[in-house]
Amino acid sequence: MKTIKGTRDFLPEEMILRQQVLEKIKSIFETFGFQPLETPALESWEVLSAKGAGGPEILKETYNFEDFGGRRVGLRFDLTVPLARVIASNPNLNLPFKRYQIEKVWRYGDIAKDRFREFLQADIDIVGSENMLADAEIIACVISVLTELGFKEFKLRLNNRKILPALAKFAGIPEEKVIDTFRTIDKYDKIGEEGVKKELLTKISAVATTKILEIIISKEELVLEELEKLLPDNEGVKELKQIVSYLKKMKVEPKFEIDLSLARGLDYYTGPIFEVFAEEGIGSIAGGGRYDKMIGLFSGKDIPATGISFGIERIIEVIKERKMIKTKKSNVRVFVIAVNDKVRDKVLEIVQLLRNNSISTDFDLRSRSLSKQLDYVNSLGIPNTIIVGEKELKNNSVKLRNMNTGKEVLLKIEDIVKSF
Amino acid sequence: MKTIKGTRDFLPEEMILRQQVLEKIKSIFETFGFQPLETPALESWEVLSAKGAGGPEILKETYNFEDFGGRRVGLRFDLTVPLARVIASNPNLNLPFKRYQIEKVWRYGDIAKDRFREFLQADIDIVGSENMLADAEIIACVISVLTELGFKEFKLRLNNRKILPALAKFAGIPEEKVIDTFRTIDKYDKIGEEGVKKELLTKISAVATTKILEIIISKEELVLEELEKLLPDNEGVKELKQIVSYLKKMKVEPKFEIDLSLARGLDYYTGPIFEVFAEEGIGSIAGGGRYDKMIGLFSGKDIPATGISFGIERIIEVIKERKMIKTKKSNVRVFVIAVNDKVRDKVLEIVQLLRNNSISTDFDLRSRSLSKQLDYVNSLGIPNTIIVGEKELKNNSVKLRNMNTGKEVLLKIEDIVKSF
Repeated sequence: MKTIKGTRDFLPEEMILRQQVLEKIKSIFETFGFQPLETPALESWEVLSAKGAGGPEILKETYNFEDFGGRRVGLRFDLTVPLARVIASNPNLNLPFKRYQIEKVWRYGDIAKDRFREFLQADIDIVGSENMLADAEIIACVISVLTELGFKEFKLRLNNRKILPALAKFAGIPEEKVIDTFRTIDKYDKIGEEGVKKELLTKISAVATTKILEIIISKEELVLEELEKLLPDNEGVKELKQIVSYLKKMKVEPKFEIDLSLARGLDYYTGPIFEVFAEEGIGSIAGGGRYDKMIGLFSGKDIPATGISFGIERIIEVIKERKMIKTKKSNVRVFVIAVNDKVRDKVLEIVQLLRNNSISTDFDLRSRSLSKQLDYVNSLGIPNTIIVGEKELKNNSVKLRNMNTGKEVLLKIEDIVKSF
Repeated sequence: MKTIKGTRDFLPEEMILRQQVLEKIKSIFETFGFQPLETPALESWEVLSAKGAGGPEILKETYNFEDFGGRRVGLRFDLTVPLARVIASNPNLNLPFKRYQIEKVWRYGDIAKDRFREFLQADIDIVGSENMLADAEIIACVISVLTELGFKEFKLRLNNRKILPALAKFAGIPEEKVIDTFRTIDKYDKIGEEGVKKELLTKISAVATTKILEIIISKEELVLEELEKLLPDNEGVKELKQIVSYLKKMKVEPKFEIDLSLARGLDYYTGPIFEVFAEEGIGSIAGGGRYDKMIGLFSGKDIPATGISFGIERIIEVIKERKMIKTKKSNVRVFVIAVNDKVRDKVLEIVQLLRNNSISTDFDLRSRSLSKQLDYVNSLGIPNTIIVGEKELKNNSVKLRNMNTGKEVLLKIEDIVKSF
């Protein structure tokens, strides 16, 4: 019997790697002042389907059912909707509220190499600050996390939802076509310039298509100054300028760039939007933005918020493929071996001594021979063994063997702990 | 909009405490050589309902539904059934396989103070050793975990499933009544001796009732030697004797005792069974035993296994109530305060300096006044502030204030990091 499609077991070798990645991420989140939050996997359908929260598309992929009490419930599809509910139901929280949440979400979508139906997300959000400093803080944290994890070539692309309508107007696109236009442009990475052009021509005029593509795609490297000339007094442009200036003051590595083709699928974004792309062939590994109107759907009162979600599964896949972290099958530091049955009692004592000193220790639980015990140690890659033999015991000593180098030293039992 | 009944949000103050408890537990599990495992929350109904795995009662509380593909799936109700599936589907695992798993499970049961519908379990299991050393190892680890968490008065009660039928025979209870008898006796803690007696009389004869109660309840303090005389050659008694002898050799604190009234609800146990009780009023905080026949339900081939499950939610409740761990609302170590707007750029620099040295740092994201910033710091209990003022900055200095003592020191900017 297997796991169901799109879900996975994580055996120790995989878990040890995942734990290392998550510990690193968590520690940087905390360095940036984000505090932990957890919410239930199960939410009421009312919450999950709150209009405009996740959008209608995502609900088609959201696991939901009637519980034994006849209530419709579902498994959360992201960590943003639960956050909005938390904020709405805890009106006395100190704002700004900076939280991180690293938990599983569920979506019944297509399955691919790094697309699953049960998968981990890691989110940071800042709730209660309308200031662009909050967005800069999110961006600085993302860049720090990815750098610490060992990513080198990534870029954070930055845009602002308030720029898009202005650009559309400039290009002569009718207002009712704006969202549709940018949904198409957002596919640039997937379908290329020709693809975007073809799709746009089915929606807007040839003149508008040419004009909008010229601004957005040809001017990918558009500097902020040019944008300011093009759209004077545009709020979105001012916000981008502010963010960039804050990031400079924070001395954040310039891993970010303005990209006017970035639209991001979700409708709830209201200001800056950002998405991080790793090198070619990997694609997007984090995405987010400002959503000042979403919490109001739950609380009736708008509270500004901005944040980003890490595509942890993809990040872990890349780390594994590129061997950016060394994997191991066991965290055990030392395995205590009995040479024969006569010394097994002494093994128990030494094991307990090591464990009392917080040294991760294991030993044979099956009365196996010396060679079988060594096979076990080697198959798990445990780095050290203590070999307990009768002869050495007479001198109150044991052998400590480094399994990588094969080097052995004779140790008094009272000196074992010191040598770790 | 709220969380659904029986589920909870964990705000930062609660999460920081939970993380501390779980980190401690995890670290002791690893000291004992257990390795991490995770399995999906969603399992196929086939797996969850495997005959004899969880028992029919638990399936009545197991969330289940048809997914979009028409397959019946459910949320796991424990971590033992998924482990059995993992073992069955990974025939090349190195045995003994010692794993820990700390994850959520779901049961649609009655709700009480420390009974929820979505809750955490922490399990350790050893798969692939028939040796009583494995059971002793589990018991030693449990005792170590609870001691490290600060529990003092707890007792691990120990029994063996192989003793129960022998005792029943001795008391003249017909074979087909044995399981039923011990289910009643298992309620001793809940309904008392009178309650047990009354219920037994509806099931077995008055003579048998008196006899079995005499052995089991009156002789709670029964020493192993007496038990050996009563049931010579009983496999279960021999196993208990072995476990006790191993625990003595491991120098484990004698926090365990033989308790013949312990039966444990689940049918799948085959040998030693154990349950940990904290002081009066708290009740059971961990329970488990040996289940040598369960993995065979999944793999067709029996593989011996033993393990225990911690009632983490109850443990955390007790830790909170007794204030065994100090709670806090934030892990931030220092908040950098701008005295006025002129110094905000310098604040950004200092914040980045601290964060680059892995010191958890926060600052004002809303351009608030000095006193509003101090209110925020105090409401979160952040222990230190760095106050950046124009006068001090001229000397390249800032003030570091300990928020608990109120003590302030003047520091050169380049000396800030050293002082943490």
